[in-house]
Amino acid sequence: MSRFFSDKFSKLAPYTPGEQPKDLQYVKLNTNESPFPPPKSVVEAVCAEAAKAQLYSDPECSLLVEKAAETFGVKKTQLLFTNGSDEILNFAFMAFCDKSTPAVFADITYGFYKVFAELHGIAYKQIPLKADFSIDYRDYLGVNATTFIANPNAPTGISLPVSEIEEILKANPDHVVVIDEAYVDFGGESCVPLIEKYDNLLVTQTFSKSRSLAGARLGVGIACESLIADLNAIKYSTNPYNVNRMTMAAGYASLCEGAHFAKTCAVIEKNREYTAKKLAEMGFEVLPSKTNFLLAKSEQISGEELYQKLKARGVLVRHFSAERIKDYNRVSIGTLKQMDIFLENVRQILAEKEQ
Amino acid sequence: MSRFFSDKFSKLAPYTPGEQPKDLQYVKLNTNESPFPPPKSVVEAVCAEAAKAQLYSDPECSLLVEKAAETFGVKKTQLLFTNGSDEILNFAFMAFCDKSTPAVFADITYGFYKVFAELHGIAYKQIPLKADFSIDYRDYLGVNATTFIANPNAPTGISLPVSEIEEILKANPDHVVVIDEAYVDFGGESCVPLIEKYDNLLVTQTFSKSRSLAGARLGVGIACESLIADLNAIKYSTNPYNVNRMTMAAGYASLCEGAHFAKTCAVIEKNREYTAKKLAEMGFEVLPSKTNFLLAKSEQISGEELYQKLKARGVLVRHFSAERIKDYNRVSIGTLKQMDIFLENVRQILAEKEQ
Repeated sequence: MSRFFSDKFSKLAPYTPGEQPKDLQYVKLNTNESPFPPPKSVVEAVCAEAAKAQLYSDPECSLLVEKAAETFGVKKTQLLFTNGSDEILNFAFMAFCDKSTPAVFADITYGFYKVFAELHGIAYKQIPLKADFSIDYRDYLGVNATTFIANPNAPTGISLPVSEIEEILKANPDHVVVIDEAYVDFGGESCVPLIEKYDNLLVTQTFSKSRSLAGARLGVGIACESLIADLNAIKYSTNPYNVNRMTMAAGYASLCEGAHFAKTCAVIEKNREYTAKKLAEMGFEVLPSKTNFLLAKSEQISGEELYQKLKARGVLVRHFSAERIKDYNRVSIGTLKQMDIFLENVRQILAEKEQ
Repeated sequence: MSRFFSDKFSKLAPYTPGEQPKDLQYVKLNTNESPFPPPKSVVEAVCAEAAKAQLYSDPECSLLVEKAAETFGVKKTQLLFTNGSDEILNFAFMAFCDKSTPAVFADITYGFYKVFAELHGIAYKQIPLKADFSIDYRDYLGVNATTFIANPNAPTGISLPVSEIEEILKANPDHVVVIDEAYVDFGGESCVPLIEKYDNLLVTQTFSKSRSLAGARLGVGIACESLIADLNAIKYSTNPYNVNRMTMAAGYASLCEGAHFAKTCAVIEKNREYTAKKLAEMGFEVLPSKTNFLLAKSEQISGEELYQKLKARGVLVRHFSAERIKDYNRVSIGTLKQMDIFLENVRQILAEKEQ
């Protein structure tokens, strides 16, 4: 920290992204990426756009917004695209929280909510998940705060029914409820249809997971027109050209590939159930996931030890040191071949422990 | 504005980007883009990367940072890449200004400085440019605030000698001085060599103008290691993967094309001097520019009228309504052919006025 750094950040604890090994030698199951590269049409759209990169991108993302409105069944004015969904979440913290409006979120959830709150000096309360790691929606009724819920939740993978989210929306009519649907396409239930009914609902999604575009950085906020207008005011006060040309084209092309991604998501769901079953057979406790990852622990080995031993064997998973989940590891779902390599290594590590 | 929008933004006046017409029928001289598309090697680098877009980008931008360190002659730890230079400027306002440290900048300069200050609730003072639109460096000595200077300045195009910036750095040892070098490659003088000597200097640059990558969004901050560490703390608390894969590859490839861009910048400088001369011959007052644009006014026609008439004829330039520059238009420098079309239209508009 330099002597010039604002005192308000003296205790800032930035987010730690998952390891991104540069040699690419690992079976990489640590950052919930898709194992499937983007389809050819997406790559071609990017190439065509790169040749025009000397021109600014359209700050309104008009073509992308038009296509997305059609895909999501919403109006164009109900959408805002951002540089990954982290950016729309950051905008939401800025727009809908302040000294008089704190934030609430689960104790075990996307680690960035806490970072955003601290970055902007926003008071926040963390509501403990139940013992089974599910959310009790009753904890969020009348909280008098802006609510952030990842649904399905990360890193647990557990999904909350939309009917329960609707109760939260109804019980907090004067506060925004942000539903972060980063993982919704792997068997979760989306709240997007509710935006017509609730003016306090903001849904965020990402193209990183189900649309194979983590490296392109594209997120979207979906809400009633007036919430989107607020978020646009923040966008145009930070980075009007926040989505670059190539990513915009990739997003558009990916929305034209609905059938392709429905298929890849189905494969990932199938591989997830396969992996969960095999882990359970090895004695793991596996949380019921509606995402492209599993959170699992074994009585036979600590979370940290399994993570380290897998890494030494060339398999990367994600371990969190937070008390309640330190016994677990989060395993992204890849191809069947990747999952078999992972499972075989786990088997060998456990066998070594027994000797 | 929704009823949920934080009161602190009730007076927020977002930045207005230049028009981005979607039909591309205009001779577009309004947003200081390069008239030259990126070279083939840059396009190819983007295409190769798009095929791997399912994987997150490297949050450390390692390869790009390595190449840039070599290009700029600095250490890797003295660089931070961002989603356009707007993002590094935003980070600088967050990191180095607060309730006790206001910002200062010129009254006529990049319009976003004021927006950033207002967004973050930072007090600011605007120091008037001299009557000839140049900066008097003595106005910035001992200001007891974080200084933001665009050098060369926009939209005036006028450059400040590095020796005078050094006086500002010396006279403000306890405050950061941000030198925004968005346009430095068109004949300006860079402060980058000074970062070794002054721990209060942050230089920002962009790949948008001289490197033909406005649509890719790539900016960079160059400063001593501790300032970069502060800015990284902000980056990792907002959007660790702020630079996407394709843009990162485009940036790397563009740094390998130094000779190409030296040539295109020289062409733009030549076209600028040609255009300035022709405008002067038509009676325009043209400010001395070291950028890829000219700010010019004519006694024969108001700035607004010329802008509107050019637009009606398919030529887009940028007009600002701020009092001191409302008589002027800012004209980006394109190809010789584009400049001839612009000049011919100006000639015809002035001729019509005389009738």
